[in-house]
Amino acid sequence: MNNQAAVLYAPHDVRIEERPVPHPGPGEVLIEVKAVGVCGSDVHYYEHGRIGSFVVRQPLILGHESSGVIVDVGKGVNKDRIGERVAMEPGIPCGICRECRTGHYNLCADVRFFGTPPIDGAFTNYVILPESFAYKLPDQVSYEEGALIEPLSVGLWACRKAQLKGGDRVLVTGAGPIGIVAMKVAIALGAAEIIITDVSPQRLETARKLGATRTINVAEESLADANRDVDALIECSGNASALKDGIRALRPAGKAVIVGMGPGEEASIPLSFIQNREILLTGIFRYANTYQDAIAMVATGRIDLKSIITGHYTLEQTEQALQATKSDPSNIKSVVVPGQ
Amino acid sequence: MNNQAAVLYAPHDVRIEERPVPHPGPGEVLIEVKAVGVCGSDVHYYEHGRIGSFVVRQPLILGHESSGVIVDVGKGVNKDRIGERVAMEPGIPCGICRECRTGHYNLCADVRFFGTPPIDGAFTNYVILPESFAYKLPDQVSYEEGALIEPLSVGLWACRKAQLKGGDRVLVTGAGPIGIVAMKVAIALGAAEIIITDVSPQRLETARKLGATRTINVAEESLADANRDVDALIECSGNASALKDGIRALRPAGKAVIVGMGPGEEASIPLSFIQNREILLTGIFRYANTYQDAIAMVATGRIDLKSIITGHYTLEQTEQALQATKSDPSNIKSVVVPGQ
Amino acid sequence: MNNQAAVLYAPHDVRIEERPVPHPGPGEVLIEVKAVGVCGSDVHYYEHGRIGSFVVRQPLILGHESSGVIVDVGKGVNKDRIGERVAMEPGIPCGICRECRTGHYNLCADVRFFGTPPIDGAFTNYVILPESFAYKLPDQVSYEEGALIEPLSVGLWACRKAQLKGGDRVLVTGAGPIGIVAMKVAIALGAAEIIITDVSPQRLETARKLGATRTINVAEESLADANRDVDALIECSGNASALKDGIRALRPAGKAVIVGMGPGEEASIPLSFIQNREILLTGIFRYANTYQDAIAMVATGRIDLKSIITGHYTLEQTEQALQATKSDPSNIKSVVVPGQ
Amino acid sequence: MNNQAAVLYAPHDVRIEERPVPHPGPGEVLIEVKAVGVCGSDVHYYEHGRIGSFVVRQPLILGHESSGVIVDVGKGVNKDRIGERVAMEPGIPCGICRECRTGHYNLCADVRFFGTPPIDGAFTNYVILPESFAYKLPDQVSYEEGALIEPLSVGLWACRKAQLKGGDRVLVTGAGPIGIVAMKVAIALGAAEIIITDVSPQRLETARKLGATRTINVAEESLADANRDVDALIECSGNASALKDGIRALRPAGKAVIVGMGPGEEASIPLSFIQNREILLTGIFRYANTYQDAIAMVATGRIDLKSIITGHYTLEQTEQALQATKSDPSNIKSVVVPGQ
Repeated sequence: MNNQAAVLYAPHDVRIEERPVPHPGPGEVLIEVKAVGVCGSDVHYYEHGRIGSFVVRQPLILGHESSGVIVDVGKGVNKDRIGERVAMEPGIPCGICRECRTGHYNLCADVRFFGTPPIDGAFTNYVILPESFAYKLPDQVSYEEGALIEPLSVGLWACRKAQLKGGDRVLVTGAGPIGIVAMKVAIALGAAEIIITDVSPQRLETARKLGATRTINVAEESLADANRDVDALIECSGNASALKDGIRALRPAGKAVIVGMGPGEEASIPLSFIQNREILLTGIFRYANTYQDAIAMVATGRIDLKSIITGHYTLEQTEQALQATKSDPSNIKSVVVPGQ
Repeated sequence: MNNQAAVLYAPHDVRIEERPVPHPGPGEVLIEVKAVGVCGSDVHYYEHGRIGSFVVRQPLILGHESSGVIVDVGKGVNKDRIGERVAMEPGIPCGICRECRTGHYNLCADVRFFGTPPIDGAFTNYVILPESFAYKLPDQVSYEEGALIEPLSVGLWACRKAQLKGGDRVLVTGAGPIGIVAMKVAIALGAAEIIITDVSPQRLETARKLGATRTINVAEESLADANRDVDALIECSGNASALKDGIRALRPAGKAVIVGMGPGEEASIPLSFIQNREILLTGIFRYANTYQDAIAMVATGRIDLKSIITGHYTLEQTEQALQATKSDPSNIKSVVVPGQ
Repeated sequence: MNNQAAVLYAPHDVRIEERPVPHPGPGEVLIEVKAVGVCGSDVHYYEHGRIGSFVVRQPLILGHESSGVIVDVGKGVNKDRIGERVAMEPGIPCGICRECRTGHYNLCADVRFFGTPPIDGAFTNYVILPESFAYKLPDQVSYEEGALIEPLSVGLWACRKAQLKGGDRVLVTGAGPIGIVAMKVAIALGAAEIIITDVSPQRLETARKLGATRTINVAEESLADANRDVDALIECSGNASALKDGIRALRPAGKAVIVGMGPGEEASIPLSFIQNREILLTGIFRYANTYQDAIAMVATGRIDLKSIITGHYTLEQTEQALQATKSDPSNIKSVVVPGQ
Repeated sequence: MNNQAAVLYAPHDVRIEERPVPHPGPGEVLIEVKAVGVCGSDVHYYEHGRIGSFVVRQPLILGHESSGVIVDVGKGVNKDRIGERVAMEPGIPCGICRECRTGHYNLCADVRFFGTPPIDGAFTNYVILPESFAYKLPDQVSYEEGALIEPLSVGLWACRKAQLKGGDRVLVTGAGPIGIVAMKVAIALGAAEIIITDVSPQRLETARKLGATRTINVAEESLADANRDVDALIECSGNASALKDGIRALRPAGKAVIVGMGPGEEASIPLSFIQNREILLTGIFRYANTYQDAIAMVATGRIDLKSIITGHYTLEQTEQALQATKSDPSNIKSVVVPGQ
């Protein structure tokens, strides 16, 4: 077994190098990586070498949207799992703190997350994972779809926080990959109307094809113009105006879920509006308890992930995949396929 | 204007007779009825003259699944509503009691409900309704679909009580009209697997065509045989075994929603199982705050209602419609079309 | 029967004048007012003639924290209610809109609220109310306590939004009347630790006497200094720093309930913190479905309201009561007693 | 260090014997037991050698309501914890299954629980616990109170499931130790009226002294006689009539929480009533995430536990403590104090 890895040394400096094949400890599995999606955060590390307080201080393997096949197991793991095709949940919490015990394991202060300094990720041939974070993929779910269970989890988590109830009018601000996925989940959860905003006509066109009932180009039309009376806002742009205008589009007792990351630590929001309408506002940090459900939704056709895959790359082309995601607004999701 | 009505005088005694056209009071609208679905409860009144403590003591017009067009309005109602196509929510609560104020208006002790003694229903040409219970139908939603917003509301309410979260495994016991509708809603709300049970191969075949991922003929196979690990049970059969075995199929912290009415006031349930797994059990009584959402789901194609309409009748054929619903298991939903 | 009223003509211009005794319509009761608490919003109208977009354009009777005795009833109301001592819920919603039907009647766009332009309030001898908004007071609850069911409702509603679960650590920012009441409710709902902040040593001393486990004078000590790890923030100061620092004191998945009104429409919040910790933020607008429960809590001694009453005034002294509330930080709640 | 233990060999056969002092493994602490409450389940094992499918097949140390002091720590545990006074949460879940990850760790299929065959409990001098299940006791909380954090957790969990909101009317059926504790928690969470039932005048008298606003001796007065309109039922008797009549006392949308264990696997419930009123019924299995909160409530005086301690015993008197709990209805909670 050879283990190649695409390693980020510095902004715009990704090197393919040989790494030892890791050895699964007790309760762990060794997984041969089969597909890895490129996330905006990967691109951000590639461009800037950091995201907020997370700084790449030593060579780092990026990639956290991944799937593969179990090729070896550690002590205590059933050997029957060897050969199992799996999606990998990339954040491993401590399992015993208050957050873990109350079911908010994504908020565990000691979580170790793929491709987040200093934890290596999945742009490589072999990775190790605790077995309970490797989820069996049914035959009808491909490795590429399996990799995208991760961004799908983000969309599913956002929609769960939005407390959709069927028949909702949902506003998604930002038609990038996460906005598109959130929109798809909202539809799959019975949302009736989906209004989606962006400044890119290409992205809005894509959104319309994938199910949006209304698109608004906020470079041309103000979101705040009318009483939109939406049940839920899913903010995926990180834009200050989208945040404010999106909140002002909510009906009384509406829900605002903030997914996009803005430029600063703080943001200005229409607080009087929130008070007078008793709006519920929250944000999401990754996701928890979504993998099994997300896989089931893909397996039974409730969610189609194939339509968002717009590029395929070999492991050697990882840097190219990172660049493509950045440069092309019609690109939704690039996938690196290490085994090819 | 002539106002014909199909009036139940006694079990198996429905007479077509002329009634005065009612006059809309303040805040009310006069609606020309365009479509009325036949419900199992209509059939039960037709067969037995009563349901539990509700007894038909004087001639009664049945029918509560209805739509129509507003033809006149009372004081305080905008005249622009004349000509509006509407679905009719058939239960009018008092609006001021504790249940009404807390949003549980379906539990209002003083609710007046169409076709429930002594309140007349919609198997007639003209009815009166408070304007806020007449919901505008978009052009793309037909009158027949509009009538079926009522049973769709039952399914939507059941699924809301089941707290579906996307990707669920749902067990529906009983593949009659309500079971089928509940299944369709569960799918529309992102349920992944739908296991449905019945003793009629015809009904199970219908369920499979309409989206069930697994059907179980409980005349042949025991539901209790295996650990089904379902997230939610929606019990639509009223059968004692379905209730017990359905609960025993639930995962820890699973939800049981009882929709079907059993033969008696009491029922035996596996209480230790409920305690040890912290199962949540509840029942539904009609629905609340579902109409707007149900219409939106039909209008945007999240739910298809046309596939469950299996028979059309004139107002004069109301009795025939009641009989057809009873006799034929392949019949899902008969619709009476008064204006024809 | 004479009906005196304290009428606000302009800022700092309150006149006592004779008004006709109103006549109860169908479903209404005539109430002889026995006690009226002075609220900060009354003082604000008295000082500025407006609150935001609500402007006093014609002479207005203030006062919305009130109790009294039913002295006459309109059509359809049981005459046995004459003589009943009642607390008055001062906001009358339409009862039929979406907000009313879903139990959020406080968010009804057509709500008519005592002492909010152009609706007259309770600084008078006689008022009219729909009977269902007049709540029977048990013998052991005095009229003055009955009047304070209104601010108690605000505190109870804030705590309900904070989803207290017993044993919580609660941060209340602002030790004014509402902060004090919110603190008392939090304690009554099982909160363990109560940290309360203010810049007035007098108010903090009062808070400590009434149950705060920790007081912080934010003029001297920074709230943001340490990881406070509180379960819930109840922001009652309207201060920008209290809002930000209060949110930053929250534990992962903590709840922020904004009660205090800030100077502007917008406010800056630590959005990254909210996202990374999945904080839930909301605001409250008055309250819904609290009166019955608040009365029961006072009647059974779960909440003591007597300790917050710090001044008594006759109806003729209404202006003096408004001024006292403004000027003295040791003043928590002044009560006008019209019948004296 | 000597380690004495009270070991159950068979019904009515408890022997005091010497056991080796256990050694704390990685992440574990060694605790010198200071107080152990006697639970009804301990008594049941003592009397019958089994509870349902849990059978005492080998000598077993009972006792799961316990506190003590940390005297040694395993690898990875901060040595500063030596000397710390702690309450012990007695059920150790696997930490990685679906139930554990979603916060329902009490429903973990692999939980190991003190004093439940074949896991030894705390009627001994020394026990081992993972450090995260040993909760620091503040100075003002005694060891005896620390031991009773366990039954308090049951009461707190039951009340959380009952979704109390302040001002509730709560019905507790059964005034044994758990009923009394549940009542105390309900009061601490702001319940206004507490109706408690039993057949023992002594127990009812105790309940009245500890805060019940109404007691009903169901040997003399029927619970079902009137419309009780209670918000929540907490069933702590295991009695079939209490279950049925208690449910029938609930208001629309009321909550029923079943704590008491009945004689059989199944029970008959008023299902039509549950359906027509949309009652929520659930049961509890132990508790989750309650220890920290329960300790805080005792430390700040929200809950008084001293009033329920009615007997003290040495470790040698464990059998006597078990017998006393059984025989005397005025006995609420006996505590074994191993170190004496």
